Amino acid sequence: MTSKHQISTLFLTIFFFLILGCCFASPRKSIRSRRPCKEMVFYFHDIVYNGKNFKNATAAIVGAPAWGNHTILANNNHFGNLVVFDDPITLDNNLHSPPVGRAQGFYIYDKKEIFTAWLGFSFVFNSTAHRGSINFAGADPLMNKTRDISVIGGTGDFFMTRGVATIMTDSFEGEVYFRLRVDIKLYECW
Amino acid sequence: MTSKHQISTLFLTIFFFLILGCCFASPRKSIRSRRPCKEMVFYFHDIVYNGKNFKNATAAIVGAPAWGNHTILANNNHFGNLVVFDDPITLDNNLHSPPVGRAQGFYIYDKKEIFTAWLGFSFVFNSTAHRGSINFAGADPLMNKTRDISVIGGTGDFFMTRGVATIMTDSFEGEVYFRLRVDIKLYECW
Amino acid sequence: MTSKHQISTLFLTIFFFLILGCCFASPRKSIRSRRPCKEMVFYFHDIVYNGKNFKNATAAIVGAPAWGNHTILANNNHFGNLVVFDDPITLDNNLHSPPVGRAQGFYIYDKKEIFTAWLGFSFVFNSTAHRGSINFAGADPLMNKTRDISVIGGTGDFFMTRGVATIMTDSFEGEVYFRLRVDIKLYECW
Repeated sequence: MTSKHQISTLFLTIFFFLILGCCFASPRKSIRSRRPCKEMVFYFHDIVYNGKNFKNATAAIVGAPAWGNHTILANNNHFGNLVVFDDPITLDNNLHSPPVGRAQGFYIYDKKEIFTAWLGFSFVFNSTAHRGSINFAGADPLMNKTRDISVIGGTGDFFMTRGVATIMTDSFEGEVYFRLRVDIKLYECW
Repeated sequence: MTSKHQISTLFLTIFFFLILGCCFASPRKSIRSRRPCKEMVFYFHDIVYNGKNFKNATAAIVGAPAWGNHTILANNNHFGNLVVFDDPITLDNNLHSPPVGRAQGFYIYDKKEIFTAWLGFSFVFNSTAHRGSINFAGADPLMNKTRDISVIGGTGDFFMTRGVATIMTDSFEGEVYFRLRVDIKLYECW
Repeated sequence: MTSKHQISTLFLTIFFFLILGCCFASPRKSIRSRRPCKEMVFYFHDIVYNGKNFKNATAAIVGAPAWGNHTILANNNHFGNLVVFDDPITLDNNLHSPPVGRAQGFYIYDKKEIFTAWLGFSFVFNSTAHRGSINFAGADPLMNKTRDISVIGGTGDFFMTRGVATIMTDSFEGEVYFRLRVDIKLYECW
């Protein structure tokens, strides 16, 4: 009898940990882990067309306020300038490193008093390392050292992903070239 | 013996409810609750630049169809006008209440026959009450009393959130000022 | 005694399968099924305003690079053209079929060297078949036979949905008309 009860107790203990495991492996939405399932760092390089650099330009002003034009970024912190871009993505901060993908989309300066922008863009990969796209959207208060935007979806290798990307201005040269560092943290990986 | 069995039965009963709790605490995607994990109501105020109100303007026309310009909203229900904005967010419907954040992004009138728009914007908070951003996107058939758009992501206090926002035009004064009431219901809270 | 233990063993067996069921009914994010919870196919039809077709046009150029205008799509693969649209959605590839909804939003050509675009738009339904909206965003490398964009949210019948949409250019006539086939696969259905 005793041995049978010991076995019974052993089973109960095992079940207890199974149940615990079961509950913690499937947390409620509200207590989901903030540990990323994937982390990546990239740089991208934006060269805005200024009337003289067509060959090298990767971006162009395509919208402007009443007081602006499409060759020079407007007064009042570029408020109202819409810029479309197709920028090379690199693994380090060197513009001339082999690109691993393209950052494609737009930004729009949205405040008179200081520099801020709103971003909608994708990272498009088509190499052996990554195939597919990551889609981003969010506010970019670009005078802050770091700012967070949303990863709103993905395709291919990044199927259905979601997460947060932290953007840093890594270099800023006049009004023609800037380089952003993007730390991508994905929290939903399918 | 009997008391041991009673204990054993007690344990089994406890486990039974633990298991039940475990199962119901982690529902399948398909039966997820439609009860919001967070609800908030805000107002934001849009003053479109019209050539004479630069000081007060919070928004500017930056795109227009061939038949339009960047100072006056175009004929044909403003079809083709792209407007960028940095609007104050308030807790009540008073433009002069202390702003609790900024609504930043753009809208674009997208139909010839009636007023409709497409919105991409963020609520940016940086106060003791809220720190972080909520990102929105969606169609705004603005002649409807209420219309729903998507909360597509968030950062900071609103890390990884998703939900639905119901927009109401709370005031509309000529073509220069309007006020939107936004009822935000978040269904994913991390 | 023996019969009591048999009952006890029976209970333990039942619990074992309950626990297993519990665990598998709530899979971790990382092993979520790639089987769609909903699939739909639609077509939409885009007629770009060219200065002569106002009555039929469903889209208009509203942004252009310094070398462009708002009546003719720009040189260099339309790089920099922003187009806003309100296109009819049909169930088959016939422009004159009864529309089941409207595709509303914008695309922006974003590369000098080849045709690529970035899309932000919604499918807006208001019929007995579907009521609500589906919101899309993503890169459209439109020279590829198929390309995937993200379903970033939804409202009404498509409350809180997420998924992937595969776009195909079904027809392309000069620079005025094109038709896209959209295969929508939703993987999150609430």
